[in-house]
Amino acid sequence: MKFTISNVDNSSKARCGFIETKHSSFETPVFMPVGTRASVKTMTNSQLEDIDAKIILGNTYHLMLRPGMDIIGRAGGLHKFMGWDSSILTDSGGYQVFSLANLRKITDGGVQFRSHIDGSRHFLGPVESMTIQRTLGSDIVMAFDECSPYPCERDYLESAMVRTHRWAQECRDYDLSGHQSLFGIVQGGTYDDLRVESARYLSGIDFDGYAIGGLSVGEPASLMNDIVDVVVPHLPDDKPRYLMGVGTPRNIIEAVMRGVDMFDCVMPTRNARNGTAFTWSGKINIKARRYADDFTSLDSQLDCYTSQFSKAYIRHLLNVDEIAGLTLVTIQNLAFYLDFMKQLRQAIRFGTVAEFYEKVCGLYPK
Amino acid sequence: MKFTISNVDNSSKARCGFIETKHSSFETPVFMPVGTRASVKTMTNSQLEDIDAKIILGNTYHLMLRPGMDIIGRAGGLHKFMGWDSSILTDSGGYQVFSLANLRKITDGGVQFRSHIDGSRHFLGPVESMTIQRTLGSDIVMAFDECSPYPCERDYLESAMVRTHRWAQECRDYDLSGHQSLFGIVQGGTYDDLRVESARYLSGIDFDGYAIGGLSVGEPASLMNDIVDVVVPHLPDDKPRYLMGVGTPRNIIEAVMRGVDMFDCVMPTRNARNGTAFTWSGKINIKARRYADDFTSLDSQLDCYTSQFSKAYIRHLLNVDEIAGLTLVTIQNLAFYLDFMKQLRQAIRFGTVAEFYEKVCGLYPK
Repeated sequence: MKFTISNVDNSSKARCGFIETKHSSFETPVFMPVGTRASVKTMTNSQLEDIDAKIILGNTYHLMLRPGMDIIGRAGGLHKFMGWDSSILTDSGGYQVFSLANLRKITDGGVQFRSHIDGSRHFLGPVESMTIQRTLGSDIVMAFDECSPYPCERDYLESAMVRTHRWAQECRDYDLSGHQSLFGIVQGGTYDDLRVESARYLSGIDFDGYAIGGLSVGEPASLMNDIVDVVVPHLPDDKPRYLMGVGTPRNIIEAVMRGVDMFDCVMPTRNARNGTAFTWSGKINIKARRYADDFTSLDSQLDCYTSQFSKAYIRHLLNVDEIAGLTLVTIQNLAFYLDFMKQLRQAIRFGTVAEFYEKVCGLYPK
Repeated sequence: MKFTISNVDNSSKARCGFIETKHSSFETPVFMPVGTRASVKTMTNSQLEDIDAKIILGNTYHLMLRPGMDIIGRAGGLHKFMGWDSSILTDSGGYQVFSLANLRKITDGGVQFRSHIDGSRHFLGPVESMTIQRTLGSDIVMAFDECSPYPCERDYLESAMVRTHRWAQECRDYDLSGHQSLFGIVQGGTYDDLRVESARYLSGIDFDGYAIGGLSVGEPASLMNDIVDVVVPHLPDDKPRYLMGVGTPRNIIEAVMRGVDMFDCVMPTRNARNGTAFTWSGKINIKARRYADDFTSLDSQLDCYTSQFSKAYIRHLLNVDEIAGLTLVTIQNLAFYLDFMKQLRQAIRFGTVAEFYEKVCGLYPK
């Protein structure tokens, strides 16, 4: 993986860059659609290509359970299995297994857990996660980390962080495929000193990029910015920074202004299936009665496949439970997110980040 | 609408033709995908265009209830409402309202019924059905008929047929839009003499095409062919013949060999959502365990969007309830049906219908 920084904003820490992997090249700041189970929900690969998505996410936890690594391995990896030619980032499985609450047992070697589907027993530690992600063949591999909940006792956070650091080194020592890059994940909860310690420790390991993990797990929105502020100065300037699981357009621009380059979130896809559309006129609940006879397009300022259809038609489809309605809103939402990132990159290049930020706050107050 | 016959088979009554409407031109025999509620389930218009669908169906009953004629009228008709530029055939609503059993009351003027959604009262007769279909702006409009169940008393069938004939004339007398064609519907249940009487009576009215209705409602498969055999000789040769709601590939070829030109059926779309794929290797239950590690394409003899994906991947998508799986199988099934019709037309042109029929019976015994 090659990361090049092309522009740095004068008024903030925002920066534009370029990532090249074996499978695709894309500009940063970038938003990565989530394809948890080898599919970005409701969309075909072709529809993803139409909106110019160059990198998507896959989830280790879900894929190891179904279809399982035997199948994906024999298919020749995740790219071949799902027919996706551009880049893939996979998470480590850590976030999901640590969320299993009563179904898991944490040891220093990893996590023993039971599948949420059939109760079968599995073990995931740094080596297991790397082995799976090597089989998946993802372009960007995430180190296996412990993602602690919010709120969380300081003592526990500290020991989880120490474990995460040891695991990070074990992941770095693992022999991935030549084309695979590995990102470390900064933890430390909401304690500034732990975050600084984690960022410094991981910076000492030669990762290809650095993620800020353990956010967007229930903490107040203002805390997220504070932690990004604390962490970024302690990460290498020449490596991409990835804020995992974030967020709203406002969350994203605020993190970009603090020096973050990469994002992923289920919000645009999940909310689409509830009838919430992200548009350049703000968030719209397309199921609302008032759109029943609104024959204008969902977003007059966006040009995507969905643009040719009226709000009245899309509302009708959702109202009668037609699957095509979910697809159309998902296309809109992801096209909006990618267009939002594009305009954000332009604002960085043109030195208009502050103005763009005002606009985004107007449209997306939260 | 213009209908031209280009080839007639020597060994059967099969024929090739060409229909031109205001919105599209297409060859016959033709299969029309069903888009009940202004959407062919799980597919976008663009995916329908990819498989070369030139005419789809809409359902009057469903559309009059949701979104309602006020909305579709203000949108400028069904084509504009759903953004579909090719032809549309709409049914009369008769089939659905007569299926409502306890929710409807039949009079000589039409049917009083309650919505299956909210219990609201509605009335549908020949004039109401024409008014709705004029608003929908469909290229092919179906006359309002009474579709009787199977089995049914002869006395009842006879009076229903007489009603259907009177309604047929009322529909013909209605002032449709200039571009709209009107088809009459032959009824008469499973009684040869009633079917002949109905075909003759309707042939005396100058319809643009003739449908055979009241089949595929539970009668034995052999009866369907018998009735088509009885009816076709009494219909005009120079008008298209449409067997409503049919059917399997074998049903279709058997009807084509008896002189039928047009078909519609929910089978390819509905079965797709159950995991049943129609392919040139026969019907496949793609959810079956044995496809879990089958990395070959769903149908090696068909070239459609789905062809690039493996059975293992499609099975995985259905297995984990990913909507994209439904879309991929629906594309396969409709692409197969349209390819099947194309090969059937070629067989008619090349005089190889008998051989093609043998092949189809081998793949689709029922």
